[in-house]
Amino acid sequence: MLGSTHGTLTTHSRPARVVACGEQPPPTVHGVPEPRGGGGGERDGAAVDRDVSGRPLYAEVPDLDRFFRPRAVAVIGASDGEGRPNTGVTRQLIAWAERVGARLHLVNPGREKVFGRPCHASVADLADLTDPTDPADPTRHPEPLDLAVLLVADPVPVIEQLGDAEVAFAVAFASGFAETGADGAAAQDRLAQAVDRAGLRLLGPNTNLNAFETFREDLDGPAIALITQSGHQGRPVFTLQELGIRLSHWAPTGNEADLEVADFLSYFASRPEVGAIAAYVEGLKDGRSFLLAADRAARHKVPVVAVKVGRTETGARMAASHTGKLTGADEVVDAAMRQFGVIRVDGLDELQDTAALLARARKPTAEGVAVYSISGGTGAHFSDLATAAGLHLPALSRAKQDELHQWIPDYLSVANPIDNGGHPVGDWRGRKIIDAILADPSIGVLICPITGPFPPMSDTLAQDLVDAAERTDKPVCVVWGSPVGTEDAYRRTLLGSSRVATFRTFANCITAVRAYLDHHRFVDDYRSPFDDAPRVLSPSARKAQALLRPGEQLSEHAAKQLLRAYGIRVPREQLVTSAAAAVRAASQVGYPVVLKASGPQLAHKTELGLVKVGLTSASQVRDAYRELTDIARYEDVPLDGVLVCQMIERGVEMVVGVTHDSLFGPTVTVGLGGVLVEVLRDVAVGVPPFGEDRARAMLGELRGHALLDGVRGAPPADIDALVEVVLRAQRMALELGSELAELDINPLVVLPRGQGAVALDALAVCHGADGESPSRGA
Amino acid sequence: MLGSTHGTLTTHSRPARVVACGEQPPPTVHGVPEPRGGGGGERDGAAVDRDVSGRPLYAEVPDLDRFFRPRAVAVIGASDGEGRPNTGVTRQLIAWAERVGARLHLVNPGREKVFGRPCHASVADLADLTDPTDPADPTRHPEPLDLAVLLVADPVPVIEQLGDAEVAFAVAFASGFAETGADGAAAQDRLAQAVDRAGLRLLGPNTNLNAFETFREDLDGPAIALITQSGHQGRPVFTLQELGIRLSHWAPTGNEADLEVADFLSYFASRPEVGAIAAYVEGLKDGRSFLLAADRAARHKVPVVAVKVGRTETGARMAASHTGKLTGADEVVDAAMRQFGVIRVDGLDELQDTAALLARARKPTAEGVAVYSISGGTGAHFSDLATAAGLHLPALSRAKQDELHQWIPDYLSVANPIDNGGHPVGDWRGRKIIDAILADPSIGVLICPITGPFPPMSDTLAQDLVDAAERTDKPVCVVWGSPVGTEDAYRRTLLGSSRVATFRTFANCITAVRAYLDHHRFVDDYRSPFDDAPRVLSPSARKAQALLRPGEQLSEHAAKQLLRAYGIRVPREQLVTSAAAAVRAASQVGYPVVLKASGPQLAHKTELGLVKVGLTSASQVRDAYRELTDIARYEDVPLDGVLVCQMIERGVEMVVGVTHDSLFGPTVTVGLGGVLVEVLRDVAVGVPPFGEDRARAMLGELRGHALLDGVRGAPPADIDALVEVVLRAQRMALELGSELAELDINPLVVLPRGQGAVALDALAVCHGADGESPSRGA
Repeated sequence: MLGSTHGTLTTHSRPARVVACGEQPPPTVHGVPEPRGGGGGERDGAAVDRDVSGRPLYAEVPDLDRFFRPRAVAVIGASDGEGRPNTGVTRQLIAWAERVGARLHLVNPGREKVFGRPCHASVADLADLTDPTDPADPTRHPEPLDLAVLLVADPVPVIEQLGDAEVAFAVAFASGFAETGADGAAAQDRLAQAVDRAGLRLLGPNTNLNAFETFREDLDGPAIALITQSGHQGRPVFTLQELGIRLSHWAPTGNEADLEVADFLSYFASRPEVGAIAAYVEGLKDGRSFLLAADRAARHKVPVVAVKVGRTETGARMAASHTGKLTGADEVVDAAMRQFGVIRVDGLDELQDTAALLARARKPTAEGVAVYSISGGTGAHFSDLATAAGLHLPALSRAKQDELHQWIPDYLSVANPIDNGGHPVGDWRGRKIIDAILADPSIGVLICPITGPFPPMSDTLAQDLVDAAERTDKPVCVVWGSPVGTEDAYRRTLLGSSRVATFRTFANCITAVRAYLDHHRFVDDYRSPFDDAPRVLSPSARKAQALLRPGEQLSEHAAKQLLRAYGIRVPREQLVTSAAAAVRAASQVGYPVVLKASGPQLAHKTELGLVKVGLTSASQVRDAYRELTDIARYEDVPLDGVLVCQMIERGVEMVVGVTHDSLFGPTVTVGLGGVLVEVLRDVAVGVPPFGEDRARAMLGELRGHALLDGVRGAPPADIDALVEVVLRAQRMALELGSELAELDINPLVVLPRGQGAVALDALAVCHGADGESPSRGA
Repeated sequence: MLGSTHGTLTTHSRPARVVACGEQPPPTVHGVPEPRGGGGGERDGAAVDRDVSGRPLYAEVPDLDRFFRPRAVAVIGASDGEGRPNTGVTRQLIAWAERVGARLHLVNPGREKVFGRPCHASVADLADLTDPTDPADPTRHPEPLDLAVLLVADPVPVIEQLGDAEVAFAVAFASGFAETGADGAAAQDRLAQAVDRAGLRLLGPNTNLNAFETFREDLDGPAIALITQSGHQGRPVFTLQELGIRLSHWAPTGNEADLEVADFLSYFASRPEVGAIAAYVEGLKDGRSFLLAADRAARHKVPVVAVKVGRTETGARMAASHTGKLTGADEVVDAAMRQFGVIRVDGLDELQDTAALLARARKPTAEGVAVYSISGGTGAHFSDLATAAGLHLPALSRAKQDELHQWIPDYLSVANPIDNGGHPVGDWRGRKIIDAILADPSIGVLICPITGPFPPMSDTLAQDLVDAAERTDKPVCVVWGSPVGTEDAYRRTLLGSSRVATFRTFANCITAVRAYLDHHRFVDDYRSPFDDAPRVLSPSARKAQALLRPGEQLSEHAAKQLLRAYGIRVPREQLVTSAAAAVRAASQVGYPVVLKASGPQLAHKTELGLVKVGLTSASQVRDAYRELTDIARYEDVPLDGVLVCQMIERGVEMVVGVTHDSLFGPTVTVGLGGVLVEVLRDVAVGVPPFGEDRARAMLGELRGHALLDGVRGAPPADIDALVEVVLRAQRMALELGSELAELDINPLVVLPRGQGAVALDALAVCHGADGESPSRGA
């Protein structure tokens, strides 16, 4: 049973071949991880550390230095023939190799020379290369090939040959794989197997030259590393270099037959030059590897900003058809990203602006935002939107306001937003004002929205802001709102500064500043849930496994026993099969009681009239028993008996469930019960592993969460007990995930504080032997 | 009583002095308006048409032609003294007058000449001006002054003198009025009174030269007219001219001592050159005049796009301090704008982009949007966001797809989004594809998102789109996603076209296209609610007025009589004052019954234990009566008796209420009852007047509206009955608005379809004699 659990959830069984030297998971701050078999990073063999669901606990980090900075590169299919598609690519690669100082080895069986350079006849020749650095050196050793670029329609045979040549990385441009449908997906599987056998790592297929673009070397400061699943969609972030923002890498992952987004995320997370990672993602290859990579970035305090397509069914379907990947249920993706601090944005413009700010701004010294403008209207408008988005604009102290009023007329408000009325920016007072705001300890970020260029004022203001930004560690943000964007103050002064963060819209500035403050708060408090993830089966699991029935939906009674095995409280209840037994049970359970029909494949009991509540006497119990069994007979519903249950009256109705996501495996949901979950789908998702803090945060995400605090005179609910149930449901998800297809505790009644929570009803569906879950009963 | 109703709600009592010639409200399409006293537009005298609340039914439309295109202009306080603030303004006005061919008359008591031009010593001299067009003409007549620009600190004395000179319009730049606090507000009132007496119309105070900016004359097509309450905040829309988008007017309304946003809105709505009105609004002077102006724009099918500050309390407070206006409760402002088709956006960038599209795009021929891209990723990403925002991307027909596959490889999806894979755009196929998409009758809008400039493809694509846009009436939208924006294809090709709508972000394109389709759907279906607004008191009103008690909260029993007077159903019930009477009443009402304590100032009855439900026998009624009166005695709550009510068990609990908004007067709210309204504030607002369609739409705006359709096997609720209650509540709001401070029907139980709706409880609070509402009882 245990074996099958592992088998189902393990998606990373292929041994690693390229491992970063000395890559260890960073030590945890808050907890002591359980001892690990063989150091972090490796993934082969039995020694690797896995959680109880059989999934890995640490990110694998491929050593991509040789990929991004190769010394020796082979181009398979190099061409200089006129009109050939490979000709342009070959030309670009030659130029790139010269720029970065890589040695290029061209291969084309049909040519002796390509662009005047010698050309090898076959890939086999590459095995005989020698290091050319000093041809006179008698100890010349073989040239290790870092990278092979495959400009061939079918990369499989080449990959096989490359294995013999001991090439570390290959890039396959060819399309026609998983993005084209089932046949293509099969071809991609064959390619992945060939890569596996050859012992190299592959980027692609269906990728391009983006990794070998020209990166500006003259820009300094922390850089953005870019990961995209579409070349065209990465272009806007890449182009940021023209606005003075440094880019260090671009990984166009294409179809991800081997290397995937998570590999690059993990690698970039510990590169010293990387200040932020920007990603454009259409689908993920594997949920767990993504979580581990995001966890690694969070441990290294490196912000990850991502566009993830799939807000709608339509978008998800289209993205799938574009790269042949799954997009996952969007609410689950969203929860996963939030849990691991990945900042999700919708537009490429937000991706640019947010990544640029996060890459370059230092750790905030305060959460307060100051808004400074040359127009009261601009200040009011910006502050309105900023406050609505959750930014905190503290009122400046009386002393600070007095200081500002030395330079700003008294009738203007300088409480924050600070309105200078325009004139002071034109002279010496402008700098004094900016410095005084930045010196305020309650202020962590200065934002200056300039909606209209008015050169006598805005040119001086822009210059003053650029100068002030050089003298402070606090981020100085400017919104340049002119739709034209060709003005000198914008293009030369503001974009010429590597310290000022310049935006074009209020909205993007607010999104970025909020992400900046959120990110630092998140990583400061971050405690990896992988450190505490359970590694061995709990005693509960063995009890629970005995209750599961592959391919079946359990009866309410059996489902509740499952809950009981995990320490989740259920009402006192007895399963009876006669009216007389029902009456006896009622007196043991204690009046008033509830009678419910119990049977496998039984759902919607209330709608069918198969529940009787508030029974206060033996005669009522007897009548109710007869009525339930009559209905069941009439509706042709097989019963295993009738449940006589303790009646729980006062509490908040919640639902807690476990479902399977195609990307992330078993996930836990919690929601407000009754009409709220029915009509509003007011639920929050937790993607295992997560800790108590996340379980608590899930409750805060519910729109109706105030219900738990007590409304209309109701007492506050026992939130601790609810959190405990969510965590126990997670444990069930991790331990039984491959056998338990679905669990739905509905309702879970949360009693007043200190009194616990009781599962009044539960539905449990087991996976079939074939791994498929049966359809839920009617 | 009737008189006082009018007095309280009438906010437009000042007689109009400038009325557009022949301005009539357009004839209604759907209904025959009740006969009007003296034609639309005029507002003086008893003949003007008012609704039953005493508020006007048609917009006043000042004739602003003389303001915007004046022939003779006086500048009071003209100066050429070095370092004087007025010098720069005078210089700008001289240049502007020369440009537009206006005759300028300068006034300054201290100067004989200003910039070498003759200068009058006093305003009084202006009365003696003569028309200078032909000095030799013996019939020379006095020069009528269209406009006086007041560059003086205290405009009041000048205004008084201008009255004698029969000047039509004045502009006051001076600040220090309502934006500075109570003293300033009093000064502004004095100014408004002076304007009133002088018989002219005033723009300002606290405004600027924006109305007399240079507008590009070389641009054609429908223009944007701009209204702003802050000069700086209008600059981005004004600057659109540099991107080739025509602007016709700019009204910087400042503090609105006289002319307000609504006046300009009404005027622009019927100017032939205006294609869309863009507004930046911090606060409104009067709710009704805004609604009437928006109604006028809707009748003329002219789109109004507005930023309205005040999403948050903070923003509202700051906006108030900036221009001294009220911002109104934001949910009410939002509802008012939605009802009258005003498109509300948050950012100035959205204002620019949305107004530019709406001004220039013709009426759509279909609601379908086609997304065409050179990258599958771009198409998927854009379509995902567009679909999430509610745009409809119809799948193209098989025949159309076959047609497109003539030019686009078969493995690419052309169902919509249409992915051309890149190559076809570079040659002759590019135009064929665009024309084929535009020819599809299911497609009303073509959007081409280009996220990365790649000149060999994107330059040709941009030119093809510009050319195609010339051949079609359908809007062609392009998103140019490069953050740089200096590329030729963007700046020359796309911005050089007056037919292509160019955006910089996906989000703004989607917002604008959605607004475009929404606007046309709205105006096509528009039926002005003012045509059907009640003009005379209903018989219900007289009955209801007798029940009101100024300054008091009515007892539940009295509040229900009020509802009954308006034909809103309440349960069978009797008010009793003894246990014996309660038992007699119960048998008449019919068991089971509910007993409730009834008294003025009584709220939160359930929490106090003052409600007993489900009483099924005389003894239960007798016990309940005693218990209620005991509790009331213990809690010291005065009762007028105990209500014995029919018990209503099955239905959907709703709330319907009337509240007063500081801007819009009485408004009607409807929401889902119980926990939903308590915890989620799931309510929709209706701003009178509104018709049945709006009442129905309000229900659709509720997040939990599916409850009304029946969930968990419940039957669909009687929505028609609910709509009828909302409309009757509106009638109460209009007829009793100045006397009824607050009405809260909670719960209103909506029974299954065909069975009606019953108000189970109601709270009614009357305005005091001083117009203040009392605090609600405990």
